[in-house]
Amino acid sequence: MSIITLTTDFGLKDHSVAAVKGALYSELDEAKVVDISHLISPFNIIEAAFVIKNAYHNFPKGSVHVIGVDAEMTPENKHIAVALDGHYFVCANNGIMSLIASEIKPDKIVEINIHRALGTNFTVLDVFIKVAGHILRGGKLEVIGKPIEGLKQLKYIEPQVNSAENQIIGHVVYIDNFGNVISNIKKPFFESLVKGRNYVISARNIKFKTIYDTYSDAINFEMPVNKREEAGKKLALFNASGYLELALYKSNPKLTGSAASLLGLKVMDTITVNFLS
Amino acid sequence: MSIITLTTDFGLKDHSVAAVKGALYSELDEAKVVDISHLISPFNIIEAAFVIKNAYHNFPKGSVHVIGVDAEMTPENKHIAVALDGHYFVCANNGIMSLIASEIKPDKIVEINIHRALGTNFTVLDVFIKVAGHILRGGKLEVIGKPIEGLKQLKYIEPQVNSAENQIIGHVVYIDNFGNVISNIKKPFFESLVKGRNYVISARNIKFKTIYDTYSDAINFEMPVNKREEAGKKLALFNASGYLELALYKSNPKLTGSAASLLGLKVMDTITVNFLS
Amino acid sequence: MSIITLTTDFGLKDHSVAAVKGALYSELDEAKVVDISHLISPFNIIEAAFVIKNAYHNFPKGSVHVIGVDAEMTPENKHIAVALDGHYFVCANNGIMSLIASEIKPDKIVEINIHRALGTNFTVLDVFIKVAGHILRGGKLEVIGKPIEGLKQLKYIEPQVNSAENQIIGHVVYIDNFGNVISNIKKPFFESLVKGRNYVISARNIKFKTIYDTYSDAINFEMPVNKREEAGKKLALFNASGYLELALYKSNPKLTGSAASLLGLKVMDTITVNFLS
Repeated sequence: MSIITLTTDFGLKDHSVAAVKGALYSELDEAKVVDISHLISPFNIIEAAFVIKNAYHNFPKGSVHVIGVDAEMTPENKHIAVALDGHYFVCANNGIMSLIASEIKPDKIVEINIHRALGTNFTVLDVFIKVAGHILRGGKLEVIGKPIEGLKQLKYIEPQVNSAENQIIGHVVYIDNFGNVISNIKKPFFESLVKGRNYVISARNIKFKTIYDTYSDAINFEMPVNKREEAGKKLALFNASGYLELALYKSNPKLTGSAASLLGLKVMDTITVNFLS
Repeated sequence: MSIITLTTDFGLKDHSVAAVKGALYSELDEAKVVDISHLISPFNIIEAAFVIKNAYHNFPKGSVHVIGVDAEMTPENKHIAVALDGHYFVCANNGIMSLIASEIKPDKIVEINIHRALGTNFTVLDVFIKVAGHILRGGKLEVIGKPIEGLKQLKYIEPQVNSAENQIIGHVVYIDNFGNVISNIKKPFFESLVKGRNYVISARNIKFKTIYDTYSDAINFEMPVNKREEAGKKLALFNASGYLELALYKSNPKLTGSAASLLGLKVMDTITVNFLS
Repeated sequence: MSIITLTTDFGLKDHSVAAVKGALYSELDEAKVVDISHLISPFNIIEAAFVIKNAYHNFPKGSVHVIGVDAEMTPENKHIAVALDGHYFVCANNGIMSLIASEIKPDKIVEINIHRALGTNFTVLDVFIKVAGHILRGGKLEVIGKPIEGLKQLKYIEPQVNSAENQIIGHVVYIDNFGNVISNIKKPFFESLVKGRNYVISARNIKFKTIYDTYSDAINFEMPVNKREEAGKKLALFNASGYLELALYKSNPKLTGSAASLLGLKVMDTITVNFLS
């Protein structure tokens, strides 16, 4: 039996997530339901897309990813089911799938049309669960919706390169649990531009001249411990998902601050890379 | 194999929830354990009852719902197992079951009497798990307790109607993850009184003249986007659970405030409906 | 199929926990994955060890406990897999296992040496999952690492007894979800010293003369309710895990304060027991 994941902005206190899970187990008693996140900021589909994009591909092919963020159906917000990269996604056509699919073309998109028989306004509970059950039982997408061509388009802000190709202007796209600052500058993009040059990364008035591959690469373990710059050291790295990240080594945001708080950075702020000639 | 759900005020950081799950899997290796909520306010059985009441019926019949809120056994707080609506509940007889059972009569109630053999003071871990395991293995309630008649009674505050039947005085019973305000006025009750009349709902100094069926029914999608009243619009609706709810359209409590913060409402505050003649 | 538990400081919003679970289900589709906690304070291995130590033994023997706290491999922080008390632990050799194993000798410790084939810097996702999968499939530890003798040693602060054996100086080791204050003074240790004497427990300027066995033992249920000291009563007890704990009866930290806030206590603060002659 394949897996159903849930990503919502329902929070972890209310009855909503459990109601969805109960309905899923009622529909499919063999279902394996896994939470991606229920702490998405309310109605923030850009944040939801970032979290799902970095999580979904770790699940087995054939998994169904149900997204309950900004999912109420309106004349402008139809429900869709999408086959992409061997996975299935059930969500509203509010732009979130265009973000998840920004690098991979969907194999099939259908606009769900099974609403007539269902009677409440709790979308995720009713419609999405029926659709997820249908897919997990091996049903075809065409049975629960009509094929459509395009997704509603939203675009992540892409990092910009100037014409001299000596500057990238990127943006903060996510602040993680450690308060580390994740930019939209990905490793292959950076590498296509660096061409062996030195560089300076600037965020506010802080500069970084090295991008590490791991957090601890920034630490010189050959120095004696008492002389070593360690906890709280500011560093830049390409993180496990391949994004340029500004971090503090072993930071605890509540005790000592984080990269985000110390650099004064929030989502959409600018991070600049200048290549030196 | 049926499902065991857990609802507690243990929080998600401590070892307690995992200790309960580990003990459940040790007792019943095929158990399917699903969290309802572990973020119930400490000892708040009214809040717990509201969350469970809105979640449990979505699970398959035969599920066992373990409630670890105010569950320590005292001379005044005995442990019970209850069969109700095709489901089982294991909890303390502290009034919570009378709230969950306010509309449905239990089929059987037993006072649990297997404590003698068990030695610690971690109630949910020891007693409730043994009882849940017994029920899931198909055991009868009479084997783990002696049948009793009544539940300790607690009552939700019910909305009051004046003798002229032109006013309902209701109360706030829950504030959800979006900061939306949920009242104790349910749709069938309202509909039995409205008799085609117009009405005004008042909460503090804010008035609502329409109750929508969904959040987006409050939005006129035929208006151009730039003229449309949308994010942050105040609205009243009957929510998916059938309660009269005051909401802000697509509110984010942390960024822009919520119905609860903008209307200045908290649990137990008054919401009034006046019918116009 | 046995169980894999996860304990991390990843938080519950980011993609990280779901990425680990997805990878686990991809590796082992029959895996049963159970969260212990993902809200460990960043890099706090002492807190993580306390939570795991109080949770793991409730799980069935043969369970694999993956610990993603301070887990990045460095020259000083190798990865290990440990067989202990019928359970398996996969973590960094950063001292955490010496805390978990402070009372039980490990049966086997190996330093993991399968890193060469794996390419990212997301330790828990890559290395620990492969190791957990190997163990759950019945593989030997020697296949994924080379046996070593010692664990990197960290020690919990132990309570100190003076030479006259009439005073214990203990410390706060954890503040729980209810704001109750848990010390490092365990029941058997206390009982080996009390020898029938009276005692006074002091925390700041508050004194306790009785240690109860349950929270409600502190309440006299024979008194009429209106004369009874109840919610908010300060009390000392040996909790379900056997630690001396200072608590408020039925406290709600957000509404009325907690033992920690009212006594002004935090982790590492002193709690003293004086035995009276």
